[in-house]
Amino acid sequence: METKIKKIAILTSGGDAPGMNNAVRAVVKQALANDIEPFLVYEGYKGLYYGNIVSAKNINVDAYVSKGGTFIYSARFPEFKELKTREKAKDNLLKMGIDALVVIGGDGSYMGAQLLHELGIKTVGLPGTIDNDITSSDFTIGYDTALNTIVDAVEKIRDTSDSHNRFLMVEVMGHGSGDLALYSGLATGAEIIITNEQTMTKEEIAEVVKNQIYEKGKRSVIAIVSEFIYPNLKEIAAYVQEKTNVISRAMALEYIQRGGRPSAQERIWATLMGIKAVDFLKEGKSGIAIGVTNSDVVATPILKALQAPRKSNKAKTIKFNKLNQA
Amino acid sequence: METKIKKIAILTSGGDAPGMNNAVRAVVKQALANDIEPFLVYEGYKGLYYGNIVSAKNINVDAYVSKGGTFIYSARFPEFKELKTREKAKDNLLKMGIDALVVIGGDGSYMGAQLLHELGIKTVGLPGTIDNDITSSDFTIGYDTALNTIVDAVEKIRDTSDSHNRFLMVEVMGHGSGDLALYSGLATGAEIIITNEQTMTKEEIAEVVKNQIYEKGKRSVIAIVSEFIYPNLKEIAAYVQEKTNVISRAMALEYIQRGGRPSAQERIWATLMGIKAVDFLKEGKSGIAIGVTNSDVVATPILKALQAPRKSNKAKTIKFNKLNQA
Amino acid sequence: METKIKKIAILTSGGDAPGMNNAVRAVVKQALANDIEPFLVYEGYKGLYYGNIVSAKNINVDAYVSKGGTFIYSARFPEFKELKTREKAKDNLLKMGIDALVVIGGDGSYMGAQLLHELGIKTVGLPGTIDNDITSSDFTIGYDTALNTIVDAVEKIRDTSDSHNRFLMVEVMGHGSGDLALYSGLATGAEIIITNEQTMTKEEIAEVVKNQIYEKGKRSVIAIVSEFIYPNLKEIAAYVQEKTNVISRAMALEYIQRGGRPSAQERIWATLMGIKAVDFLKEGKSGIAIGVTNSDVVATPILKALQAPRKSNKAKTIKFNKLNQA
Amino acid sequence: METKIKKIAILTSGGDAPGMNNAVRAVVKQALANDIEPFLVYEGYKGLYYGNIVSAKNINVDAYVSKGGTFIYSARFPEFKELKTREKAKDNLLKMGIDALVVIGGDGSYMGAQLLHELGIKTVGLPGTIDNDITSSDFTIGYDTALNTIVDAVEKIRDTSDSHNRFLMVEVMGHGSGDLALYSGLATGAEIIITNEQTMTKEEIAEVVKNQIYEKGKRSVIAIVSEFIYPNLKEIAAYVQEKTNVISRAMALEYIQRGGRPSAQERIWATLMGIKAVDFLKEGKSGIAIGVTNSDVVATPILKALQAPRKSNKAKTIKFNKLNQA
Repeated sequence: METKIKKIAILTSGGDAPGMNNAVRAVVKQALANDIEPFLVYEGYKGLYYGNIVSAKNINVDAYVSKGGTFIYSARFPEFKELKTREKAKDNLLKMGIDALVVIGGDGSYMGAQLLHELGIKTVGLPGTIDNDITSSDFTIGYDTALNTIVDAVEKIRDTSDSHNRFLMVEVMGHGSGDLALYSGLATGAEIIITNEQTMTKEEIAEVVKNQIYEKGKRSVIAIVSEFIYPNLKEIAAYVQEKTNVISRAMALEYIQRGGRPSAQERIWATLMGIKAVDFLKEGKSGIAIGVTNSDVVATPILKALQAPRKSNKAKTIKFNKLNQA
Repeated sequence: METKIKKIAILTSGGDAPGMNNAVRAVVKQALANDIEPFLVYEGYKGLYYGNIVSAKNINVDAYVSKGGTFIYSARFPEFKELKTREKAKDNLLKMGIDALVVIGGDGSYMGAQLLHELGIKTVGLPGTIDNDITSSDFTIGYDTALNTIVDAVEKIRDTSDSHNRFLMVEVMGHGSGDLALYSGLATGAEIIITNEQTMTKEEIAEVVKNQIYEKGKRSVIAIVSEFIYPNLKEIAAYVQEKTNVISRAMALEYIQRGGRPSAQERIWATLMGIKAVDFLKEGKSGIAIGVTNSDVVATPILKALQAPRKSNKAKTIKFNKLNQA
Repeated sequence: METKIKKIAILTSGGDAPGMNNAVRAVVKQALANDIEPFLVYEGYKGLYYGNIVSAKNINVDAYVSKGGTFIYSARFPEFKELKTREKAKDNLLKMGIDALVVIGGDGSYMGAQLLHELGIKTVGLPGTIDNDITSSDFTIGYDTALNTIVDAVEKIRDTSDSHNRFLMVEVMGHGSGDLALYSGLATGAEIIITNEQTMTKEEIAEVVKNQIYEKGKRSVIAIVSEFIYPNLKEIAAYVQEKTNVISRAMALEYIQRGGRPSAQERIWATLMGIKAVDFLKEGKSGIAIGVTNSDVVATPILKALQAPRKSNKAKTIKFNKLNQA
Repeated sequence: METKIKKIAILTSGGDAPGMNNAVRAVVKQALANDIEPFLVYEGYKGLYYGNIVSAKNINVDAYVSKGGTFIYSARFPEFKELKTREKAKDNLLKMGIDALVVIGGDGSYMGAQLLHELGIKTVGLPGTIDNDITSSDFTIGYDTALNTIVDAVEKIRDTSDSHNRFLMVEVMGHGSGDLALYSGLATGAEIIITNEQTMTKEEIAEVVKNQIYEKGKRSVIAIVSEFIYPNLKEIAAYVQEKTNVISRAMALEYIQRGGRPSAQERIWATLMGIKAVDFLKEGKSGIAIGVTNSDVVATPILKALQAPRKSNKAKTIKFNKLNQA
């Protein structure tokens, strides 16, 4: 039953992430290598609804192999929750003879893919988000590049903090997942790492700063903090400065974390997942989420993927803080 | 009279800047190459006052050739305005037989060098700040690296803005000088560049965003804005979003702009200026500021350097905006 | 029996690799966090023999968190194969009360660790080499950074090849393992990937170049080739140029592949492995090789690790070539 | 007479260089901003001859602001030396109503522009080459990025050389100009810098290596050598190794030097020169070479530009060697 798929469309949805372009490229090229015609849907589910769909046959997808963001764009489109909207999207695909769709995005995007699957479109989801918050995959497309971006930024901040004998609090993204904070903290030797599962009071923070500067003789202290934990980092920094007499500042890295040239691993895994998406569709699979588990690209039913419990970073946060403060 | 200088000390002062380490290294090595003993003063004028001065003879300064920040540290020390403080600093130098001092920093640091010169210490100032706001030099040590850092960051932000069809306002440093905003705006093709001499109202900003997105068909709009102009960029972004229906965000790059590996030009000019500082001291010069004018390393009396008028960026800001909006 | 270890030494051996410094740092800090005194052995087994061993207690290992190479140096030392040499090395450790040793390096270094284990020293091996040729670990310390370096270099080469309509052959390291070629080829979309298990004749190479340029309309063709396969790449390029009329060049990336700031993943896994090395030694384990299997840090007896068969890249090389040529 | 120019074409010629795309973009956008229609000529003079010329009106030139190489391609075309060839090229321009041409390239490309000028086409040359060998400009488009690329590569090589206590010879481009070697050597602290005007015998090289390693206690020695000086660097390295007992290697950076994202300064100056090209053409100027002199964008008659004498790097090579060996 392998050869039934004739045309595959692909879209990106949710927040952009480096590596999305590599996944799109892999789907296009693996389709071509299997005599399937690839199509690009611009602006995610919104484009699906409005019929913004073009053949990728003559598009040079190789040109995007080193480009951040998503060259087929993304957009918010809450209207997709309505059945009528989805049915129009389905019709748009069928009108063009497209029987399968690859969706790259986060949990919300997966839900859209599941609902289209229930309407009869063959769908596969790929985990695309820098936040590493998709539990059905060991890591997500975008995560490795964002980690490298944060590491680079924190090291620039370390230069200044060392020069001026300071405490710097740096807020990073994560959308509820502490992985970006936890592992960028490990990678940079941040003396303080704060994730959702292991937070600290401002008094505790001041205590560590005091200890690191005055007891351990550190020239500077860096705290990496997951977003959405503290309402105002600058206030905490002001408190720490007052308590410790160490000049203290706070900042957020914000939008620099989402863009940028994809790292080598990003490209490799995004490409491997894109290849697998086509392979699975060829096998007739649908309603599945692709992910990396134990260094292997595997598939899970989307419904199951959405219910997978999130691992807590509590123990690791404690352990890495201990290491970095030693 | 050339050979009178036996020992030269060096310090960094004010905000850290990439390339400071290359200037320090050049002073140390050019001193050694001329049989002069080099000394490092840690923590700027504060270290000079407290006698935190060590011979650089056995310090491997080459190790810092690619390192951001300043490895001899910097510190605020307003007490240096008092004569008594400066006299103690002078005594610290004389006690160690040091007759000359190289100061790397901004205008405030130059003033300290001038006052020490008036006390009889031979002093030379080098322009060290990312802000490019020292009028006696075509550019300052740190400026080129900071420009590259901003360009990198803005391009990451562009990826996300393109993906999501957005307007992004990015605040950059400059400390009253618009050069970082102006030239990073030119380098990245930012559709809006705002410097102190050529600002825009929020209404005007909204107008450009509307034109670029809806008339010119741009996928995204970036504004690069000098610091200290608007009290709250996020409010302006909210206004623009309301007026244009283009999703709009604002952020500041903050401390990532000051650190980082020095660029090639940074190292080259910092090294050339460091060499020249030693050469001038050998010639008996003192109370001078070193800078680059017309691609040449030259010296100006510090008092004159401090009075040089700042060039206005008004005409260039208008011109570059016109180009980038074309 | 946990607390018997009082002092742990660490050395790096074989070719240097980014991330080695992070592993050293992790061993030092995890030791300190567990009240074990860490020692650094300079220049690998050579330093062990000559007693070049110092306490790391007062060494600021955090300073090397972003530094390539190995700050405790490496050296060739074939003399370590002799029993007398190893016994002196053992004595040097025992004299200083050091009862455990962590060795970071490749297979040859592991053998040294095994032999010391047989002499009664508790030893643990960490996989440190850019070549990813240690079969007991899914990847080695240094591999991810080298991949990123190759990707960056190939993209620069792509710029020139695109501009001038050329075929470029790029030789990369690997020491018999094709992983660097295979995965950098996947990451960059190299039209030709050649690994030891799947080579091509010059006639076949010319055929692909012809097809890609004249049939597929590619502006340039890149071949990534593992080292030690062809005696002279430039001759092959000359042949291809003659046969295809496409200007063809060949070059080797050589030593730029081994150095450089460690990537985020490099630091993370090197640190996790370094932590685990101390944890295992605390548990009384010895003669073991640490590696990453299925995203987990695990231990294997060194003798078993050295015998693990190498996976063939043949099928993947074929598959990735097909994708990139599609 | 200002408004006579209605259409301007642009081409890139000779070796590609980062920043060429920024110059092309600036010409296009400055033309648009002045109601002039811009045209792109693909593949340099070859495309001019074959009529490969398209309007840039609807091409998104902003997309290339951060891209290396030249997106309008380059090609060798010695046939342009023949008058008949040039007359056909001229006719191609006139047929499309194009009365002015901007040429980005090196000396050879300038000569082509001069000959077209003599045929009545208004021409302006911009200095595009990484080699910095165009004497009518203080620096060329591509030079700054290539310098940064070399500095990055040399620092990776330094990591390995330090780890293994080695001497490494690194050959860099320059095409007869020593600037890339000279200034990358200054920027990286290379112990040996060899330019065309100041070479060393292998005996002298061995002497410096011996002194730096055994007297100065350096862990490694790097030599940066301009291309085309020694027939075989590997032989020299072998000689040095034999004489000094320091393991010695040699390599060439080759094609990685020409590609890559343009640096901030590259983009800025390429853009300023591109703007000026249009401004000069609007003023009716022709047969001129644009360059940067004393931090200002200026024009010189091409014939004069081609005759400007090259400055010798001899004294600077000696001076920088002395500094780096101190």
